[in-house]
Amino acid sequence: MAKEKTFRPKARRPRGFEDRAAHVIRAERALVSAASAVYERWGFEPLETPAFEYADALGKFLPDEDRPNEGVFAMQDDDGQWMALRYDLTAPLARFAAEGFQDLVKPYRRYQFGEVWRNEKPGPGRFRQFVQCDADNVGASGPAADAEMIALAAEVMRAAGLNDSEFVIRVNDRRLLDGVLESLGSADDTRRMRVLRAIDKLDRLGMEGVELLLGKGRKDESGDFTEGAGLDEAQRRLVLNFISHSKNVAQWEMDSTKEPADAVLNGLKPLLSGSRGGSAALADLEAIADILGALEISGAWMIDTTVVRGLGYYTGPVFETELLATPTYADGSPMQFGSVASGGRYDDLVARFTGQQVPATGFSFGVSRFAAALSALGRLEGADAAPLVIVVAADKARMADYFAMAAELRAAGLRAEAFTGNGNMGKQLKYADRRDAAFAVICGEEEFASGTAQIKDLKLGAELAESITDRDEWKEQKQQFSVPRSELVSAILTRLSARG
Amino acid sequence: MAKEKTFRPKARRPRGFEDRAAHVIRAERALVSAASAVYERWGFEPLETPAFEYADALGKFLPDEDRPNEGVFAMQDDDGQWMALRYDLTAPLARFAAEGFQDLVKPYRRYQFGEVWRNEKPGPGRFRQFVQCDADNVGASGPAADAEMIALAAEVMRAAGLNDSEFVIRVNDRRLLDGVLESLGSADDTRRMRVLRAIDKLDRLGMEGVELLLGKGRKDESGDFTEGAGLDEAQRRLVLNFISHSKNVAQWEMDSTKEPADAVLNGLKPLLSGSRGGSAALADLEAIADILGALEISGAWMIDTTVVRGLGYYTGPVFETELLATPTYADGSPMQFGSVASGGRYDDLVARFTGQQVPATGFSFGVSRFAAALSALGRLEGADAAPLVIVVAADKARMADYFAMAAELRAAGLRAEAFTGNGNMGKQLKYADRRDAAFAVICGEEEFASGTAQIKDLKLGAELAESITDRDEWKEQKQQFSVPRSELVSAILTRLSARG
Repeated sequence: MAKEKTFRPKARRPRGFEDRAAHVIRAERALVSAASAVYERWGFEPLETPAFEYADALGKFLPDEDRPNEGVFAMQDDDGQWMALRYDLTAPLARFAAEGFQDLVKPYRRYQFGEVWRNEKPGPGRFRQFVQCDADNVGASGPAADAEMIALAAEVMRAAGLNDSEFVIRVNDRRLLDGVLESLGSADDTRRMRVLRAIDKLDRLGMEGVELLLGKGRKDESGDFTEGAGLDEAQRRLVLNFISHSKNVAQWEMDSTKEPADAVLNGLKPLLSGSRGGSAALADLEAIADILGALEISGAWMIDTTVVRGLGYYTGPVFETELLATPTYADGSPMQFGSVASGGRYDDLVARFTGQQVPATGFSFGVSRFAAALSALGRLEGADAAPLVIVVAADKARMADYFAMAAELRAAGLRAEAFTGNGNMGKQLKYADRRDAAFAVICGEEEFASGTAQIKDLKLGAELAESITDRDEWKEQKQQFSVPRSELVSAILTRLSARG
Repeated sequence: MAKEKTFRPKARRPRGFEDRAAHVIRAERALVSAASAVYERWGFEPLETPAFEYADALGKFLPDEDRPNEGVFAMQDDDGQWMALRYDLTAPLARFAAEGFQDLVKPYRRYQFGEVWRNEKPGPGRFRQFVQCDADNVGASGPAADAEMIALAAEVMRAAGLNDSEFVIRVNDRRLLDGVLESLGSADDTRRMRVLRAIDKLDRLGMEGVELLLGKGRKDESGDFTEGAGLDEAQRRLVLNFISHSKNVAQWEMDSTKEPADAVLNGLKPLLSGSRGGSAALADLEAIADILGALEISGAWMIDTTVVRGLGYYTGPVFETELLATPTYADGSPMQFGSVASGGRYDDLVARFTGQQVPATGFSFGVSRFAAALSALGRLEGADAAPLVIVVAADKARMADYFAMAAELRAAGLRAEAFTGNGNMGKQLKYADRRDAAFAVICGEEEFASGTAQIKDLKLGAELAESITDRDEWKEQKQQFSVPRSELVSAILTRLSARG
């Protein structure tokens, strides 16, 4: 009988899924931990729902209208029912709130972070699994709940290490534009969508470009024609007047000042006096401004009538959070980030299941993208691991001693390990280098006999190169030096504290 | 055209999946956080792999031989390849290590926690998704790496709030029993399995029951006959001698003392002098004992030759961690826990992919089960949320003031929120009760006019009931009292600190 050939699968990942490296994980955890601490302090309760939901319960709640046909990972359970992996944390919240609605303590304020999955074509930087972090309030209809969400977004940005001049929360209300369109007399859906799309291009095309798109249409450089919303001149002026009531993006990106909310609101009033929804929105925005003022976060937000993303999904106030500080890649080129956190009011959340309208407001951020930006900006306390010390296994018969040394170093707050692999001194020092260790400790027969330990300072070379001015100071420090065994820990701590 | 009836899905979860409540999440996070801090200090790097792996890469690595046909959640990707959700964190580690083997800094020591999925019949307390936490070392062949895993298990137990007398790590080595069976002359697989199963029943059947199963077999009370391993008397005595070299479970559960490792090892030597593998195992266990001694965790572990779980899977040292403290349910009945953390050496991990034997050792614990036990024992620092204060929205026009009060309370380290929902005072106080709040703050027109605040102490009644002896002290404390607005925070902190 011929021996069967052993099947050896190829070790590889499915497309669009990533393994996360240690420094990425530490940054993401620091961010999630900072955000969670904010939510906890504000009295939000953590919730964890399972990865699977019944497919019919998931429905479609994505605020991102550019990708309406985005798929889910679905499979049939053994009883024939279709389940799918959650694609966001909002749909599971809706299911959870509807399932236990009678017993739910309302308003139900919860936060949740966790993986979500999207069965779409993967691309560079576009993964089929990523981590989201959401906070929501189910059951509160007033503007106080919306103000709380904006305040939370500001608190999360601050907890992530940003100051108020480094980000802006742009707040709009769906009912404002609806009110303006109402006063145009013809607020049909097609026209509404075209007006929204025109405003969305302000950043790229400027006021003139937007005016063309509000009118007959616009031909771009390549000659392609985009049909316009067909507004006459008076109508166009009304819309342009509406969106210019908050400074445009480029302007406040330059000086980081945010137009005071009361000035913007006063300017908008005459435009919306004829619309009940628009007036209600203005009153809510005033209440929001009042609360945000009391919380001392006036400098973190502004009303921005050009925010249109998600207006089709949300039912009231809506907001986006953008970084004003520009993180750069290692080569100095700027990272492009859109909104890092967005949210708003969506009062149809639970109605899908129960038919009963339940007010809800919330916001969400993508953990990986935001953490990457913060890492590039050098923020995020706790994202860096403590200095690492490798105790070289110079003599295999002395492993217990090496473990004891590592334990002493750990007790002093360092990361420390005795080398557990195989290999000579050179291989072990190379291991220490590749692990980005700060120190290696070397104790062979001689050191044990004399009650000493050798310390190799693995970062000294790098320090020297970085601060030539301090050369005299560093010159006195040797890269490898001997200390009495009893001073092993203190000698390493002294070096570290001198380094700051 | 008739109006279509709106489809309303029923809000419900797929079978075997749970929503986790806030107190459960907090306990699990405290445990994961304590364990992660241990792994970080020891120089282990975090790793996150995706939920999906290619099905052929997952293979079968489960140590639990009782459930070999346990299923996975699998689905076909759009390119026809089968993917499946991971059912543990070991198979993804094998894929990861094999995929990047050349560039991997070895030994590669990583920890990982995350959800795993098992497509099996759900039952009470048996879920199809749960959280595991693993630490592994890929690339280190010596006993130092095994000792490190046992030390980590002990450190995690300690970090979870247990002292050394409240748990025991039972260590065995697959090669010991293999050595004994070798000396029996007929170490075929069927006999080996029967001997393993017999030993595994020591706890339940005692030495006599095990002897029957080692010999011709045993008839239980119901009359069912279990065929034995067919050992003759001398062989049976050898095996019984082997397993009795460590005290039996019942014995050390009673007095919490662990037999010193050197005594057990000395006793085993004569039994294994003829087996090369057995002698190597003894030498390794001696080295492990040496290192654990240097780390001052001798009181946390013992050699236990009756540990057989996973012996078919592991290739060298193997261990289980059991609680000696018995957590109880609210009604006083004891919770039944088997091993809360187990692991060992499994040198075939990467070979599945590459054909190349790579040494590996590690251990794993189930987060939910362990956290539930710790909660029942009242351990786990950080598992409890800070006291919660609800600022009642007595006057909707004063929301900004209520938010400012909550902000002051948060700045003092409390959890605090202004009530964002709708409802009169009674409804809001009921909300505070149901949220388990410690205090409610009430400020209406009168209080604003007089610059005061009403504080309602929601736990005072409960405190009174619990400590009747302190009655005189508490009698002086009113349940609701007025303070100057400027003393709101300090008044609440004073009450809390008096309460301890």
